Amino acid sequence: MRTWREYPAWLKGFSGEVPEERNTPEEIAAFEAATFHDRDKERRKIRVQAEGAGDAFRIVKTGDGYCVSGGSPGILYGTYALIRQLLTGEDVREGESRPSFSLRMLDGWDNMDGSVERGYSGRSLWFENGRFSYDRARIRQLGRMLASVGINVLCINNVNVHAPAQRLLDDMLGEAADFAAILRPFGIRLMLSVDFSQPMESSLSGCDPLDPEVRSWWERCAERVWSAIPDLAGFLVKADSEHRPGPNEYGRTHAEGANMLADAIAPYGGMLLWRAFVYNCMQDWRDTSVDRPCAAYEIYHPLDGMFRDNVILQVKYGPYDFQVREPVSPLFFGMDRTALAMELQLAQEYTGHQIDLFSMPPMWRELFDAICETHVDAVAAVSNLGRDANWTGHPFAALNLFAYGCFAWDRDSDPAAVIRSWIRLTYDFTEEEEEQLLRVLAKSRDVYEKYTSPLGLCWMVKPGVHYGPSPYGYEFDLWGTYNRADRNAVGIDRTAQGTGYVLQYPEKLRSVYEDPERCPEKLLLFFHRLPYSFRMRDGRTLIQRIYDDHFEGYEETLGMQRALEALPLPENDRDEILTRMAAQVKNAAEWRDVVNTFFFRFSGFADRDGRDIYP
Amino acid sequence: MRTWREYPAWLKGFSGEVPEERNTPEEIAAFEAATFHDRDKERRKIRVQAEGAGDAFRIVKTGDGYCVSGGSPGILYGTYALIRQLLTGEDVREGESRPSFSLRMLDGWDNMDGSVERGYSGRSLWFENGRFSYDRARIRQLGRMLASVGINVLCINNVNVHAPAQRLLDDMLGEAADFAAILRPFGIRLMLSVDFSQPMESSLSGCDPLDPEVRSWWERCAERVWSAIPDLAGFLVKADSEHRPGPNEYGRTHAEGANMLADAIAPYGGMLLWRAFVYNCMQDWRDTSVDRPCAAYEIYHPLDGMFRDNVILQVKYGPYDFQVREPVSPLFFGMDRTALAMELQLAQEYTGHQIDLFSMPPMWRELFDAICETHVDAVAAVSNLGRDANWTGHPFAALNLFAYGCFAWDRDSDPAAVIRSWIRLTYDFTEEEEEQLLRVLAKSRDVYEKYTSPLGLCWMVKPGVHYGPSPYGYEFDLWGTYNRADRNAVGIDRTAQGTGYVLQYPEKLRSVYEDPERCPEKLLLFFHRLPYSFRMRDGRTLIQRIYDDHFEGYEETLGMQRALEALPLPENDRDEILTRMAAQVKNAAEWRDVVNTFFFRFSGFADRDGRDIYP
Repeated sequence: MRTWREYPAWLKGFSGEVPEERNTPEEIAAFEAATFHDRDKERRKIRVQAEGAGDAFRIVKTGDGYCVSGGSPGILYGTYALIRQLLTGEDVREGESRPSFSLRMLDGWDNMDGSVERGYSGRSLWFENGRFSYDRARIRQLGRMLASVGINVLCINNVNVHAPAQRLLDDMLGEAADFAAILRPFGIRLMLSVDFSQPMESSLSGCDPLDPEVRSWWERCAERVWSAIPDLAGFLVKADSEHRPGPNEYGRTHAEGANMLADAIAPYGGMLLWRAFVYNCMQDWRDTSVDRPCAAYEIYHPLDGMFRDNVILQVKYGPYDFQVREPVSPLFFGMDRTALAMELQLAQEYTGHQIDLFSMPPMWRELFDAICETHVDAVAAVSNLGRDANWTGHPFAALNLFAYGCFAWDRDSDPAAVIRSWIRLTYDFTEEEEEQLLRVLAKSRDVYEKYTSPLGLCWMVKPGVHYGPSPYGYEFDLWGTYNRADRNAVGIDRTAQGTGYVLQYPEKLRSVYEDPERCPEKLLLFFHRLPYSFRMRDGRTLIQRIYDDHFEGYEETLGMQRALEALPLPENDRDEILTRMAAQVKNAAEWRDVVNTFFFRFSGFADRDGRDIYP
Repeated sequence: MRTWREYPAWLKGFSGEVPEERNTPEEIAAFEAATFHDRDKERRKIRVQAEGAGDAFRIVKTGDGYCVSGGSPGILYGTYALIRQLLTGEDVREGESRPSFSLRMLDGWDNMDGSVERGYSGRSLWFENGRFSYDRARIRQLGRMLASVGINVLCINNVNVHAPAQRLLDDMLGEAADFAAILRPFGIRLMLSVDFSQPMESSLSGCDPLDPEVRSWWERCAERVWSAIPDLAGFLVKADSEHRPGPNEYGRTHAEGANMLADAIAPYGGMLLWRAFVYNCMQDWRDTSVDRPCAAYEIYHPLDGMFRDNVILQVKYGPYDFQVREPVSPLFFGMDRTALAMELQLAQEYTGHQIDLFSMPPMWRELFDAICETHVDAVAAVSNLGRDANWTGHPFAALNLFAYGCFAWDRDSDPAAVIRSWIRLTYDFTEEEEEQLLRVLAKSRDVYEKYTSPLGLCWMVKPGVHYGPSPYGYEFDLWGTYNRADRNAVGIDRTAQGTGYVLQYPEKLRSVYEDPERCPEKLLLFFHRLPYSFRMRDGRTLIQRIYDDHFEGYEETLGMQRALEALPLPENDRDEILTRMAAQVKNAAEWRDVVNTFFFRFSGFADRDGRDIYP
């Protein structure tokens, strides 16, 4: 069996491992610079000049190479950025570079039993059997991978805090501190997910955020935690969400809940990441007046301005939950006086389980463009890492982690450039092969979207597992996830005449979304309920567009398969990639046929081109 | 917390426990007779007269009571039958009584980790943590319960043989023998589920039934097993079914597979129970030429007459899988020269999880009536027992176990008489209260049927869990479980013009089933694909009948709830019963609305009476 040492992901061009004795960002930067020089055919020199603290760095060309200067850990980011550019043969970007976001977080949904919620890359890299359990060298390599793309915070435990993860704040704190120490030289600070009701495990009878006893419990907790891990980045909290405890149980607002925790950790510079993923998960499907996408804005918009300075509201990119296609969350336009983090999901929960290809940079480009006129202050992404030898299950899934770092550093990143970078760092391809893989990866999200839920309809996945089609699987459930397809029409009217969700957007977006003639067609069924005979802008009917997309999505999957088979993939990865690709082809056929049949049975419309739609 | 000792089920009228020193059927019969006498207000005497062996018994009235005579264990059955009649005040049936079936089996789906597959009464009564683990006194009480209704075989492990249950034939055989010894005095013999591929765990490279090495492996196994448990009833096998190994993998027939095992155990008088639950569980929903209910007949009918004398083919009552309403399996008419067991399921997998009421005697009456002109030679029922203090989760679920024993002894049993017997043995009610509970229980299956899948359509349960509605949940899956509802019609045509399933029945039944005008209406959608406007015999449309049944089913559930609330249930049971009843009401409402909406969305027909159908 192969081990992680045989899968350097995008660090192939780097030396094997960073020696243990290199124990600060400056030392590691110097090591990487020196070993680059040793391996470089052109013998380019990289001079590393550390100065003070901070994330920023500067690159200057010198006679025999480059000089990188910057604070700690900036010097490390600069060195990696430069080496990446040199290895890929890109033009070196000289001058100063500063990150778009000061917190560039990776959220592990790792449980202490070793499982990873929605993980598709094997067991946890650091937990097993209710305790820390890891390969120290591998964690150092993980630190290096993350640092190489500028990720600077790692939340090590699931936001759904399952026992015994509460003990991370208590008798397991020492082990957490040991773990933090491994990643610290790479500029990575830990974060911990905490359970809002945790005081109740230690003899308190409640967790009312206004109760002085609860406040002082958390103050003592913070003192203990930060004295063990002085650079802990903060706490991450999922409260009043999907049966997690929270301040609402005590009639308190989320501002009151978050501020109480924020106050406790403020003296230590801790940030409080409060997740805005709150909605009624016991909804009655019969009640059409409740519309889940409205929930977060309804809860948080009235609280704007009420949060402490060290609170960041962590908002999933769309109003639902990491679907293939959602409009950007309206909260990003409704919280002028509140710091916001955008939450992405590298783990491919709804996007193919790291079996089907789904490269995310094009999606992120759209998201950051959508909010270019408003603010977002930090980014977080649910990790796609696990103990699989190749780190991410599917070798290509590493692209999403790599690209996340790039976008977190520079929100204006170009998707194609990032993908090309990753390909060059990972494989030894000719220019033509590189272009071929780039084309596959760049369009993989569009292809996946075409053969799954149509036009922003969402939630047609199999319940629970979230892989494969089940068009009515969530239709009568408690989660607020309905498509309401019937013999005449499909979708939910979210305009002012419907649930009113569209009113949460600023005028400029609202006017587009609310008009079926102007709404982006890929979001049409997110915002509108339409008859199957509705005319799309190109004259096709809605039902024909659904059929066409699904037939095309399958054909394009076959095209991706042919392209990958033709590539000289390294022996290491080839089987893994082609086996998963074959599974994707099967999945795409299943999606195509189930979705087409589902809508054919309701609508009665035959395919214009007479292709096979099973009755 | 209450213990099982506070829940005597229907043994309330008996003395606390049978003392350990009573260690043969004769001794136990004498004990029960004597303690009955001690407790009987009329001081009736029961004379117990053991003679030879056998299940039959004779009851004769004497001057001061009754005389029961019979073999061993028949004397025990006779004594219990008599005491039951005396306790309930029924007329004592004098004369000889012989069972309808010599094997009256209860199949535990108990795994050795302590879980019970499809169990709704808690953990296994005898397994935990990969080994035997039980309360000896409770197992004796279990033996008494089963003997009191004549059940004489207990298969202790799941037909899906999960490790380490293979060790029951090997190093755990001694523990199995100890367990058998506890039940032996109650006339109960053990049976073991075996894994067809078991020889492969002991160094053999295959399990081809015609391979002499495999044959001799099983011969040695049988010798070992029967020398430890000389009265073991036999082996139960699930082969080539739902990914279990079997003879088909070697190109051998099921007759060849079964006969090989039967030969190995024949010298010891062992019976081989071979389950006929075999079908393609990887079906493609697109392929309408494959129809799962056809499978068993297609496989086994050609093998009729090829099985050894000590093979019994164990056939589920319907061609699908323990659904609320199925026609009786056509195999019962197609195996003239093969011994058959009918398999029932007391565990309420598809019938309400021992939350919703579903009393089975009326269903069994129909089943036995349906096959009155053909043969069935044994009966088996999947157990509904578990470690819950009250034995069966829902106190009323004990009725199904009690009634199963009654039907296994006398296939001509009257459902109402059996239910009344059980009520009288279990509760102290007035005649009026008894009638009220009898009415609830007697109609509970009809009510459950009304609010769940309509008219024999089957499989509208939530996938996996099998509780609650999901009308399309199994529609595009691999299990062959489709309703093919669309905007025009619903159901599968199983006549000669359709899948031809109906051709498996003898003419008399076929001519009824194949004609929508004569087919029992409750099976209409099992056999026919019909438009929503189809006229039922009373003039209603099919869609209106579906709506009516669902509204009525819910109303009748409320009626059952009112009836139970009015009953003076013992404090012991009351909360359990009413809490479950409240859950049933909620479940019935959910089923009603989901099924009605599902068909409304497809058909577009409004309810004639304008009741609420949610869009």
